[in-house]
Amino acid sequence: MSSSTVDPADPVFQLHQGGKLAVASTVPLNSREDLSLAYTPGVARVCAAIAADPRHADDYTWAGHTVAVVTDGSAVLGLGNIGPHAALPVMEGKAVLFKQFGGVDAVPICLNTQDVDEIVAAVRALAPSFGGINLEDISAPRCFEVERRLDEALDIPVFHDDQHGTAIVVLAALRNAAVLLSRKLGDLRVAISGAGAAGVAVTKMLVAGGVNPDQVVVCDSRGIIGPHREGLTSAKAELAELTNGSGRRGDVAEALRGADVLIGVSGGQIPEAAVAGMAPGGIVFALANPTPEVQPEVAARHVAVVATGRSDHPNQINNVLAFPGVFRGALDARATRVTDGMKVAAADAIAGVVADSLTPEAIVPSPLDPRVAPAVAEAVAEAARRGGVTR
Amino acid sequence: MSSSTVDPADPVFQLHQGGKLAVASTVPLNSREDLSLAYTPGVARVCAAIAADPRHADDYTWAGHTVAVVTDGSAVLGLGNIGPHAALPVMEGKAVLFKQFGGVDAVPICLNTQDVDEIVAAVRALAPSFGGINLEDISAPRCFEVERRLDEALDIPVFHDDQHGTAIVVLAALRNAAVLLSRKLGDLRVAISGAGAAGVAVTKMLVAGGVNPDQVVVCDSRGIIGPHREGLTSAKAELAELTNGSGRRGDVAEALRGADVLIGVSGGQIPEAAVAGMAPGGIVFALANPTPEVQPEVAARHVAVVATGRSDHPNQINNVLAFPGVFRGALDARATRVTDGMKVAAADAIAGVVADSLTPEAIVPSPLDPRVAPAVAEAVAEAARRGGVTR
Repeated sequence: MSSSTVDPADPVFQLHQGGKLAVASTVPLNSREDLSLAYTPGVARVCAAIAADPRHADDYTWAGHTVAVVTDGSAVLGLGNIGPHAALPVMEGKAVLFKQFGGVDAVPICLNTQDVDEIVAAVRALAPSFGGINLEDISAPRCFEVERRLDEALDIPVFHDDQHGTAIVVLAALRNAAVLLSRKLGDLRVAISGAGAAGVAVTKMLVAGGVNPDQVVVCDSRGIIGPHREGLTSAKAELAELTNGSGRRGDVAEALRGADVLIGVSGGQIPEAAVAGMAPGGIVFALANPTPEVQPEVAARHVAVVATGRSDHPNQINNVLAFPGVFRGALDARATRVTDGMKVAAADAIAGVVADSLTPEAIVPSPLDPRVAPAVAEAVAEAARRGGVTR
Repeated sequence: MSSSTVDPADPVFQLHQGGKLAVASTVPLNSREDLSLAYTPGVARVCAAIAADPRHADDYTWAGHTVAVVTDGSAVLGLGNIGPHAALPVMEGKAVLFKQFGGVDAVPICLNTQDVDEIVAAVRALAPSFGGINLEDISAPRCFEVERRLDEALDIPVFHDDQHGTAIVVLAALRNAAVLLSRKLGDLRVAISGAGAAGVAVTKMLVAGGVNPDQVVVCDSRGIIGPHREGLTSAKAELAELTNGSGRRGDVAEALRGADVLIGVSGGQIPEAAVAGMAPGGIVFALANPTPEVQPEVAARHVAVVATGRSDHPNQINNVLAFPGVFRGALDARATRVTDGMKVAAADAIAGVVADSLTPEAIVPSPLDPRVAPAVAEAVAEAARRGGVTR
């Protein structure tokens, strides 16, 4: 049986029968009186109040607690460009996680276009129904422009989870790893393998969180990114400007020579010999799924702390630690956007949950830890208020 | 206190606090095992199966039981063009009704544009997430083009409820009124006051259901529509072609002279003297809300059966008798569109629920009658299969 065939005996297909979501009514509707309150004629009074002042929509519609999970199906899990219909089970799963951990109502919106202008137009059009936009599984470099244009156009939070969710959890994990190893973030030499959506966002997040950009080198499939490279996309050109203060050139092995930290967000394999060239007592986050850039048991021969994206190894760097709390906090504060300050606050909150019980095998909380999302939500809401980005 | 102010003591505002909808997860998520089935890595198998054959999305996503309730906020209730934010409470109410009566999951989508091309583009873009599109409260004549273009572009049902929901229930009510009065539909002379979305659809639906188009006259605010009228919109030009076989001209009083049936879908007032000119033993459906075109007690002096759109009078012509069952049946049959045959079947099913207990004050079921939607769903699904419009 091929991997693209339905197997009705497979527990996964049994679980997915009928999908994973439903819409529930939160009001009674059993009498003409109920009907006249929830629908006509009563509802007209609520409509008139919102028409007079749209901010009442935060209180008197579900938009105040609901986000759209928007994809174009172009970069779904490890499956790649599978299109909007096939992406829907992932977006439903995301909505389940939003609800379970953040108490956020989330609606999957899978778009039948991969054109940047059309994606932006569609999301702008449907935005009044929602309190936030979670972009998901949109391939780089289009994802950067989509997010930037929507962030400018809309007065609700826009957040590309593949970038910022990953970046927040990486920063949280790196903070705790640094504490554990008695290192300062600003002193670490960091090599990042991968310059797609996650690589770009991780780089910026680490810098926002205190890593010295001069001590960061980022590699794509052609090697270290720097001013010497020609024909870079605008996102990579920005990395060339921001990072690599000493103008290094070469491959990933060169990037790793003497580095304290490797963060793999590429899917490409990294040879053990390259990892062996890192400084002693280092840190490896090999986040590709299902196959890490370097196997954790191999990495462990050369460094002190190892994390992966996998649930069957310790220290799982999982976005679910971030996005439910980020949106819960942003919605609670009625934030108009998600700032760097809010992201750093989210990372601090994630790190804080396990700060008192750090071990090399527990630098981040479990993805199922119920303390995480409330802590993140509170920190994000506070940062939004402090940053003045609320309605 | 003005009618556009929030009154926190008003039970309507209390009921609407936080909106009227939530998203619910239908799968457990309490362990790493649950997470690996509902989300990664398990979900990838479902995605791959849908990528290989998109029809599996009907079974393994929520799209198979979920519709989008789409508006541009241009013609909301009696409030008019109040925009997308203020329209949201009505769309949420509609979603509550979908769930309560049809077991259909419905998501409000309020669009931030009133441009036909942009509406069509946005709905085409988001369609992969849904099993049907319910258009709502989009003003005429734009609603006709929006529906036509989406119906052509999409392989899921597209249904403008203000047109067809109303038309289906009017046909059901007229069938039962005719039975009660021992008249044949094909013999009735019918005057329709109003040539907006509902007037156009009611006219076509009555003809599809057996009324003789030559014996129908439709009036707009300028009077009877016919070939003598210049500068008609394309929808009205179609009515001029279809109806008014004897080439009548004049105002609504002229249209009513000798008519057996008045159907008011205009909001304009009709004087008692005009109603008095109808044939004896006639039928008046005065559907404007909250103020009927003619008060029911006034109409009752001149005709045998009276219906309105109001819940506080007998014979309420309420769309909720149609749309939940229409979409439930269309989704169950995996219909690709909603044909005239499916609409007539829906009308017959609604009429059938009270066929054995007809009185002049009970020609249609109560909007809360739980027998209606299942009967409509079964009839619509059967008509879809018979018509060959299923996937």
